[in-house]
Amino acid sequence: MQMLHGAFSEPAMQALWSDTAIITAMLRFEAALAQAQDQCMVIPNGIGYDISQACASIVIDPAALAVDARRAGTLAIPLVKALKAYVAEQSPRAMPYVHFGATSQDVCDTALICLIQTALQQLRTDLLRLGDGLATLIHAHQRTAMLSRTLLQPAAPISFAWKLAGWLDSLMRNVEALAAAGEAARVLQFGGANGTLVSHGNKAGAVSTALAARLGLCTVPISWHGAHDRLARLGNELAVTCGMLGKMGRDISLLMQFEVAEVFEPDAPGRGGSSAMPHKRNPVSCMHMLDAAYRAPSLAQSLTSELAAEHERGLGNWSNALPLLADLFVLTGNSISAAVEAVEGLRIAPDTMAQHIESTRGVVYSEGIAHLLVRKLGPVRAEILISQGCAEAMAGHRTLPTVLLAIPEIRDHVSDEEMAGATSLSTHLDAAQSMAAQVVGAWRAHRGPLVNIKE
Amino acid sequence: MQMLHGAFSEPAMQALWSDTAIITAMLRFEAALAQAQDQCMVIPNGIGYDISQACASIVIDPAALAVDARRAGTLAIPLVKALKAYVAEQSPRAMPYVHFGATSQDVCDTALICLIQTALQQLRTDLLRLGDGLATLIHAHQRTAMLSRTLLQPAAPISFAWKLAGWLDSLMRNVEALAAAGEAARVLQFGGANGTLVSHGNKAGAVSTALAARLGLCTVPISWHGAHDRLARLGNELAVTCGMLGKMGRDISLLMQFEVAEVFEPDAPGRGGSSAMPHKRNPVSCMHMLDAAYRAPSLAQSLTSELAAEHERGLGNWSNALPLLADLFVLTGNSISAAVEAVEGLRIAPDTMAQHIESTRGVVYSEGIAHLLVRKLGPVRAEILISQGCAEAMAGHRTLPTVLLAIPEIRDHVSDEEMAGATSLSTHLDAAQSMAAQVVGAWRAHRGPLVNIKE
Amino acid sequence: MQMLHGAFSEPAMQALWSDTAIITAMLRFEAALAQAQDQCMVIPNGIGYDISQACASIVIDPAALAVDARRAGTLAIPLVKALKAYVAEQSPRAMPYVHFGATSQDVCDTALICLIQTALQQLRTDLLRLGDGLATLIHAHQRTAMLSRTLLQPAAPISFAWKLAGWLDSLMRNVEALAAAGEAARVLQFGGANGTLVSHGNKAGAVSTALAARLGLCTVPISWHGAHDRLARLGNELAVTCGMLGKMGRDISLLMQFEVAEVFEPDAPGRGGSSAMPHKRNPVSCMHMLDAAYRAPSLAQSLTSELAAEHERGLGNWSNALPLLADLFVLTGNSISAAVEAVEGLRIAPDTMAQHIESTRGVVYSEGIAHLLVRKLGPVRAEILISQGCAEAMAGHRTLPTVLLAIPEIRDHVSDEEMAGATSLSTHLDAAQSMAAQVVGAWRAHRGPLVNIKE
Amino acid sequence: MQMLHGAFSEPAMQALWSDTAIITAMLRFEAALAQAQDQCMVIPNGIGYDISQACASIVIDPAALAVDARRAGTLAIPLVKALKAYVAEQSPRAMPYVHFGATSQDVCDTALICLIQTALQQLRTDLLRLGDGLATLIHAHQRTAMLSRTLLQPAAPISFAWKLAGWLDSLMRNVEALAAAGEAARVLQFGGANGTLVSHGNKAGAVSTALAARLGLCTVPISWHGAHDRLARLGNELAVTCGMLGKMGRDISLLMQFEVAEVFEPDAPGRGGSSAMPHKRNPVSCMHMLDAAYRAPSLAQSLTSELAAEHERGLGNWSNALPLLADLFVLTGNSISAAVEAVEGLRIAPDTMAQHIESTRGVVYSEGIAHLLVRKLGPVRAEILISQGCAEAMAGHRTLPTVLLAIPEIRDHVSDEEMAGATSLSTHLDAAQSMAAQVVGAWRAHRGPLVNIKE
Repeated sequence: MQMLHGAFSEPAMQALWSDTAIITAMLRFEAALAQAQDQCMVIPNGIGYDISQACASIVIDPAALAVDARRAGTLAIPLVKALKAYVAEQSPRAMPYVHFGATSQDVCDTALICLIQTALQQLRTDLLRLGDGLATLIHAHQRTAMLSRTLLQPAAPISFAWKLAGWLDSLMRNVEALAAAGEAARVLQFGGANGTLVSHGNKAGAVSTALAARLGLCTVPISWHGAHDRLARLGNELAVTCGMLGKMGRDISLLMQFEVAEVFEPDAPGRGGSSAMPHKRNPVSCMHMLDAAYRAPSLAQSLTSELAAEHERGLGNWSNALPLLADLFVLTGNSISAAVEAVEGLRIAPDTMAQHIESTRGVVYSEGIAHLLVRKLGPVRAEILISQGCAEAMAGHRTLPTVLLAIPEIRDHVSDEEMAGATSLSTHLDAAQSMAAQVVGAWRAHRGPLVNIKE
Repeated sequence: MQMLHGAFSEPAMQALWSDTAIITAMLRFEAALAQAQDQCMVIPNGIGYDISQACASIVIDPAALAVDARRAGTLAIPLVKALKAYVAEQSPRAMPYVHFGATSQDVCDTALICLIQTALQQLRTDLLRLGDGLATLIHAHQRTAMLSRTLLQPAAPISFAWKLAGWLDSLMRNVEALAAAGEAARVLQFGGANGTLVSHGNKAGAVSTALAARLGLCTVPISWHGAHDRLARLGNELAVTCGMLGKMGRDISLLMQFEVAEVFEPDAPGRGGSSAMPHKRNPVSCMHMLDAAYRAPSLAQSLTSELAAEHERGLGNWSNALPLLADLFVLTGNSISAAVEAVEGLRIAPDTMAQHIESTRGVVYSEGIAHLLVRKLGPVRAEILISQGCAEAMAGHRTLPTVLLAIPEIRDHVSDEEMAGATSLSTHLDAAQSMAAQVVGAWRAHRGPLVNIKE
Repeated sequence: MQMLHGAFSEPAMQALWSDTAIITAMLRFEAALAQAQDQCMVIPNGIGYDISQACASIVIDPAALAVDARRAGTLAIPLVKALKAYVAEQSPRAMPYVHFGATSQDVCDTALICLIQTALQQLRTDLLRLGDGLATLIHAHQRTAMLSRTLLQPAAPISFAWKLAGWLDSLMRNVEALAAAGEAARVLQFGGANGTLVSHGNKAGAVSTALAARLGLCTVPISWHGAHDRLARLGNELAVTCGMLGKMGRDISLLMQFEVAEVFEPDAPGRGGSSAMPHKRNPVSCMHMLDAAYRAPSLAQSLTSELAAEHERGLGNWSNALPLLADLFVLTGNSISAAVEAVEGLRIAPDTMAQHIESTRGVVYSEGIAHLLVRKLGPVRAEILISQGCAEAMAGHRTLPTVLLAIPEIRDHVSDEEMAGATSLSTHLDAAQSMAAQVVGAWRAHRGPLVNIKE
Repeated sequence: MQMLHGAFSEPAMQALWSDTAIITAMLRFEAALAQAQDQCMVIPNGIGYDISQACASIVIDPAALAVDARRAGTLAIPLVKALKAYVAEQSPRAMPYVHFGATSQDVCDTALICLIQTALQQLRTDLLRLGDGLATLIHAHQRTAMLSRTLLQPAAPISFAWKLAGWLDSLMRNVEALAAAGEAARVLQFGGANGTLVSHGNKAGAVSTALAARLGLCTVPISWHGAHDRLARLGNELAVTCGMLGKMGRDISLLMQFEVAEVFEPDAPGRGGSSAMPHKRNPVSCMHMLDAAYRAPSLAQSLTSELAAEHERGLGNWSNALPLLADLFVLTGNSISAAVEAVEGLRIAPDTMAQHIESTRGVVYSEGIAHLLVRKLGPVRAEILISQGCAEAMAGHRTLPTVLLAIPEIRDHVSDEEMAGATSLSTHLDAAQSMAAQVVGAWRAHRGPLVNIKE
């Protein structure tokens, strides 16, 4: 199940969480720690260099590391042991200072934090690309009318742009929330055996500051081995990202149904075929987006459920933060990637959209008509007449306005123009356009000069 | 299971989510809507007043409403129907303008948002009180030494203040995150039938602004019937709050074990007894805190799982946002309330804490001793000697320093003063105090003049 | 949020979990306990009668009970206290024997078990009714052809009966699994203070047997205060039930889309309207079925997550078994009830179904055609020709068989009869009918003479 | 994160879910399908042999397969494509009959089912070994007295055997429930393109039967591409298994606290050390058991949440059944393995257990004493005296019986013998022994001659 996990991931994000990436991040911590301690004169001069060189050249076998880690209960112990053995060969005098004054969770948590920061960069890049893709489509489809659908039933028309603007609006919130959660989690974990950095004496602050600076992280008032809420928040936000994209996947796949056929994923060799039916074109991008939306919330929930950890370091909780967050990032990355594929290659069928509006025979304008008739005839008569009119329109071949205008009681009070006004597609598109424009405006403001909307 | 649900809630928060509170919030929306529309001349002059008067005087039976709501699939339809009937009596001319241009989810979502804002205020008040309580204890226990415990095993000493500072630090993040999530969710939901406010024509923006202002909410670029991520984020943050408090409950209950006996919940009549054993003093506050930590993450996860909603309004998802969030707020409120009870009445046994440190016979200083011996004897010998020394200390009656100093190889290189330095409790407390002070400082800065730390 | 919770429940199931029902179940335990102890001569003769009389006549205020329960951490303590005070008035000599040798969790867990057994009876009755409704529809729609849909794309035709048979098949497994989980959980909880029934000495077994018999429960080898796996399994099975019904709701709501329009929920006053659009007919039953499918798995998961409880009685876990299971039963009951409404009133549009098959222009028969052409022309040519044919059929107005038979290469090797055989709707219905018949046969066997299939 | 996942798994179970194992299981399906079709004369004579030979000799690169699978949305399509290409070389005439009449989910689901059956065998073997280990300990510790602990507070004594019997009792239920869920899921998935096996005509049943027989599976009345409840149930039971083991891990880790020190995980090189503190002995087995208990319920919940799948094959749901179940099995296998390590090497400290009972100064006998005093002095006086007595005993140095017998009011009515009877440790052990014996008896009956209890 190791390579085949790749069926649900895309290579770039997978690489950021590979065995190599993890080991490298852990070694980077050990190197930076020694350098910071050297710089602050906690360890002898030159030792920092020796250890960081060793960290750069050591080769660690992930499979063997995993076996020892299972016994030890943490990746840190066998990694530090291997590093010490290697340093003992390379620079014997440096060996006692490997991992000096640090604890397992210092290296595990901080390495995880560094992996997260890189992964977030990639998610952000892809999300912005996706947002630009949506904005481009919005620009193109301001006047592409389609049915809105509430509770899976048709409602008054919108533009396709308006629908896309709803997606872009939540994507924008997501980009911001993900950045905020990531920034809040860009913190060093460094506390030593019991969390107080006691072995660093009055140099604790200086070493923390130097170490954080080398890793591009912030320092915090107190170590947080027992309080991983920052990571729980980040996990939750990744799950929200997957949910937001799952909504896009849900909508596209519904629009791509044979009977709806308004929007389609791009077609390409090897995409969405069937092993049994040559004609099939399955919505594979949507599948990936929905897959992540089904799985991510549960994974994130595990993180939140583990917050009630015991004392200064919990047992069984948070040792699994690495695999849980790796899975969350890989799922999220896969979903965004699938969304970019879908959106950038999206095919739209405006005629079919128009035809579906038409085939409702005007009943989707019932709200506007109701307002009109209520004003003219009072609410009681209005309700009765519209209800009868809708039934008749749906059963027969005439539109609701036609049916209603044929009733003398209405004919006497409502002009053709008034009825046309109440059922004007153009008015509906105007209303939609106004909101969509606000969303795109906000996106432009958010993106600044980097925006890449094709017009 | 209606009244008895009260066994897991405290009355003030329960009241904020009562049937009455919900109905009142919905009517408040309808009143404000009519007033905003009146003000913007969307409906005839005076109608806003009539409808808002009706909203203030109508009496709605929640049980009957629920029965109709189950049939209708939403609370809004029977509520609007009842309001229309009432207005028809009170002010017939106003009746057509009840709920004008709005849709069910406008009133449901906006009422929920308003309920949330009030509930968040109460959570915040209680969390700040809890934080002040913690800060007060930190002040008092800067030099109260206790064992740290990692993976449920003893580690080098900390102060009780340092432990509390860890709690306060995460509480502070929580207060901020909850405020941010609440502020992000302080938004009007108003889109009408299809979300575009088409029936309001070019007055859509003006009415939205006026309506939002009347309800103390913000407007948004586009309606969000299909994108409830703001509420999912808030739900997740409530779950994180419960997790953070669950951690406090976990720690207190572990410290309150008979064999540990370092910290105790307050004692009071009716608290934590047993129906079988007269001697029992059960940690009831911790029970509530842990209960919420077990339940809240799952409830929040439902919200995130429902994000992949269909089109302009999903089916089966988000109709349940009200009960889910109500449960989350009630659980969170109950947990905070229990935490305040526990913290404000907490009893500490510093002597027992000290005794536990002593009974480890110095092995918990093994990190410091190791640093010392490695410097003096090299890592290989140091490891062997310490390992033997720990075993001997734990098996016998001498402390680890005594055992080690009796070994000639060590005696020759290590002075009593050096060994004392490596195992100094005072040094450990200093390190802890420095971090704890930073946390309290941050809390003071966060609280400003409102801080209520008893010194 | 107490009455309004009713918007997601139906009255019969709600009543089974009312405050009154819970208090009655707890008093029933206390009564049966005293009678069993009297019968086994653990307490003086006649005391059992006195206590059971008191249990039958005492009136307990749930709101007051809840307040005390929150302080005590369990409903049992204030309930036993109230009962003792009442017995002290009614029969002073009996007072010392109230709740004799029992612990809080004995009465809480056993009362919960009894409530569950009753609730399961009702679920079962409703599920069987639903199954009969499905079997009735299967009988009527053996030859009603419709598209199958895989990954939301059209595939080779099935019968509507076959689709229903898939639902019935999983419902049948559900009925059995629910019965098994319920039977496994039909057990007495009785262990006294520490779980060993030590205060009953050598009468422990006899009292357990008598008590279980009076409550219609089984005895177990050892008390299970710390091991609630039976309830976790039951919770999980309720969640699976909701998932199974959610699938029905999902399918019906998709078939009820305006563009699909093959199946409809029944129409009735007050059902599925819209507060904005008079024409709307929302799938309210499906909404309830999906609502439960979204919420139940999370609730059930809380129960499973709480299994890792501490020692002989966990803290914060399982004290919430009552509200969690009550919510699960109410959601499940509501979903089944909605499903019965939907299925018994389901309206089918066979013509539309047929029309959708036709409008695929034969491409949904691609599997059968492929088998034919592969045999005749080899796989390479077959794949190319079918792929071109499908594209042409979908783009134009001819069917896939017509397109293909117009190609000389095919014309030369494939007769009209062979092509007709490969695309025979009747053959597809035969295949479907055979499986559907097996399912109905299994249902009949399961139901025995009680089956109520309308033919 | 591929090799390093191994830090949370043990090799034997990991191997059962390796890329190779998965591909082999899929090829085994294709081979058995061709052979069954050959045997039933659905395909030409000899083709079955050719295809099965090809399945035995083909080599498939999992990394490449994964890349294609991501595009295709399923492992089946690239695997079948590769197999066809290979067969085209090896036996051109057989090529058209590869995967004949089957659909992607037929091979994916059935292969998963086969993987599950093998994995369940291993879990069962390990669980039985664990059960025997517990039974052995029970045998040895019938009279090893220890405190019971409810809500993390001390209660009346039990034997260690009784505690273990509680674990064994739930383990036994688990073994049975897992076997039942596995047996219910030992079913063939075989339906072809639309689920009806239409391409097999009247040979559908025969081929299904032959195919199932070759794979050691059962046939079912109807294919279940849209109804994966059997797998959801299995996933839930795996989560319950992890919960049950998590409870053992929780208890052991609590007993292994420094201040409790009653029970210890075995000690071995490389187990549970600390990177900072040489003296640490961390409960690593418990860590693994708790890790799984935190993660498994969420993973299982995803499966249940995915039940509401669309139509004949859902989108985004159940395509992930393989990774979800693989993770669940690996976590469960790791947890059982850790439990076996812990239990088979468990070290017990009976003296410390006895000392803890003693240090409660008799207050844990308060239930028995209460029964005695209530009989002698009535409930009112009894409650007052015991309450005072407990406080005095806990505060001072005398035991509760001594304190009470010093009160004249009690001295006059209660003999030393009566008090001794009410506080007899031996009586407590008798009660515990009786229950524990029943559990072991049930285990022996369950295990039959295979039981391996060391006495």
